[in-house]
Amino acid sequence: MNPTIKTVLVIGSGGVGSFYGGRLSKAGLEVSFLCRSDFHQVKSKGITIKSYQGDFLVTPTQVVARTEDYQGKPDLVLIATKVLAETNLVELLRPLIAPGVKLLLIQNGIEVERELANAYPNTPLLSAIAFIGVNKTGPGQIHHQLHGRLEIGAYPHGWDLELDQVMAAFEPTGLSVKHSTNIEKSRWKKLIWNAAFNPVSVLGLANTQQILTSPQSRLLLKGIMSEILAIANSRGLGLSEELIEQNIRVTEEFPPYKTSMLLDFEAHRPLEIESILGNPIRLAKESGVLVPHLETLQALLKLRVKALE
Amino acid sequence: MNPTIKTVLVIGSGGVGSFYGGRLSKAGLEVSFLCRSDFHQVKSKGITIKSYQGDFLVTPTQVVARTEDYQGKPDLVLIATKVLAETNLVELLRPLIAPGVKLLLIQNGIEVERELANAYPNTPLLSAIAFIGVNKTGPGQIHHQLHGRLEIGAYPHGWDLELDQVMAAFEPTGLSVKHSTNIEKSRWKKLIWNAAFNPVSVLGLANTQQILTSPQSRLLLKGIMSEILAIANSRGLGLSEELIEQNIRVTEEFPPYKTSMLLDFEAHRPLEIESILGNPIRLAKESGVLVPHLETLQALLKLRVKALE
Repeated sequence: MNPTIKTVLVIGSGGVGSFYGGRLSKAGLEVSFLCRSDFHQVKSKGITIKSYQGDFLVTPTQVVARTEDYQGKPDLVLIATKVLAETNLVELLRPLIAPGVKLLLIQNGIEVERELANAYPNTPLLSAIAFIGVNKTGPGQIHHQLHGRLEIGAYPHGWDLELDQVMAAFEPTGLSVKHSTNIEKSRWKKLIWNAAFNPVSVLGLANTQQILTSPQSRLLLKGIMSEILAIANSRGLGLSEELIEQNIRVTEEFPPYKTSMLLDFEAHRPLEIESILGNPIRLAKESGVLVPHLETLQALLKLRVKALE
Repeated sequence: MNPTIKTVLVIGSGGVGSFYGGRLSKAGLEVSFLCRSDFHQVKSKGITIKSYQGDFLVTPTQVVARTEDYQGKPDLVLIATKVLAETNLVELLRPLIAPGVKLLLIQNGIEVERELANAYPNTPLLSAIAFIGVNKTGPGQIHHQLHGRLEIGAYPHGWDLELDQVMAAFEPTGLSVKHSTNIEKSRWKKLIWNAAFNPVSVLGLANTQQILTSPQSRLLLKGIMSEILAIANSRGLGLSEELIEQNIRVTEEFPPYKTSMLLDFEAHRPLEIESILGNPIRLAKESGVLVPHLETLQALLKLRVKALE
């Protein structure tokens, strides 16, 4: 087994998958993409990344419409699909699972790894969260506006060698990639922001500044964040209360912007309600933590999304 | 002082004011209307009431654009404006306050009477809630679809003679008018429905059936109703927990419909957020009752309404 990662297959050609896959390709790896609606566009013209760090074009090694069509076995499968009930990742990945293949999941929310880990316990699973502002603006068209840091950890633990290999693969990209020794904790930390700003922005049709300006919704943000903290801490993660003020302060320092969930909503794309609200609510119930804010947001979002249909 | 009510001035020519004023007029009383945007239409063509109990035309005795312009003193001022921060009822009514004038407030929400009672402690104040389905469909155009029962009580107590006179004035209308011996309690009972269905319908853009069909929003309704009950009961009103199931069952038995707040929202009319959510939340704070659902709804509604501006 060759320890070096040379071939990568990206599943999910949205902003995140295209950007990280694109940077790995630019750094010299052989990067292929699984594309559905974008297949013909990407196959004929590649992926154009407009980035504040410099625009570039990605020409994939292979473009496939189904995982079965991939030629060979990739060293790394970079999974950056949205976390949606209708996506059966386990079945999607089945044709790729083989010795030497590693999985890297770059997704939002919590408990996104469990299903894959249960289905393929012998396949190294690395779990990552991306701190990035990147959007898909059209088929094969990506706009990278902000940051790009990754935090990567093993799920649930172990896979030390494989983690090193993945970190090494990202090194020539020049991107900031941090090893998280407790990826579960990192996910909960990021969830503090996501569970508050994303749903409130959609239900209130408001950008970050509009949310922070109204005293009631500012208080609401804190109420939501407190509930996320309480669930995390009921699981022994020891998150500090100070993270609440910190998340608010950091957001306030940025120019006003629309959350990714609001952008998805406005574009009539599906929303990641389960990984951001549904999973935390389920864990809260297991621990007996009361989460009325989260439950209210979840119920309203589900109604609101139905009204779009 | 003549105990019989012969002249009525209706403030607020929306569905409720027009309907009850119209029925009093049809029953032979001299009913005048204060109109703003509808002034010219109502002055020249009156008010047309399309009703499942029979259509009729209301020709007001006087149509005035300002309370100062009303000729004489009305025996009864029927106030059916929306409860909005921008409406200064105390100042609006000042030119009309005189011995023999009685006030009848037909409005939703709680604590809607306090300001008037404080400003005019010697003026009889009757407080009513309307169980009715009535909408304004255009200037001087009203559609009455459902019911028409009134519950009237004195605020806060007393005014027995005046209450009898108002009840007697409604007798020839044939409408069901009930004397509420505890109008505060009646308001809270109605608020159980209003505080739950109205905000959820706007934030979820959903009709009653759509709200009741989703398990999460059904649970949300119950959570909201429980908070209203808890505030009411912290004030010694002794509302039964059974009211929750009862409100849900009754709504389920009706054909699906849009709440009045959703209709207002869709027509870009202002929403009664304060009397339905703001006042209960304020009282909850005074009593130390936790109301996370209500606070979430209030914060989101305020954002959502701002997004319309």
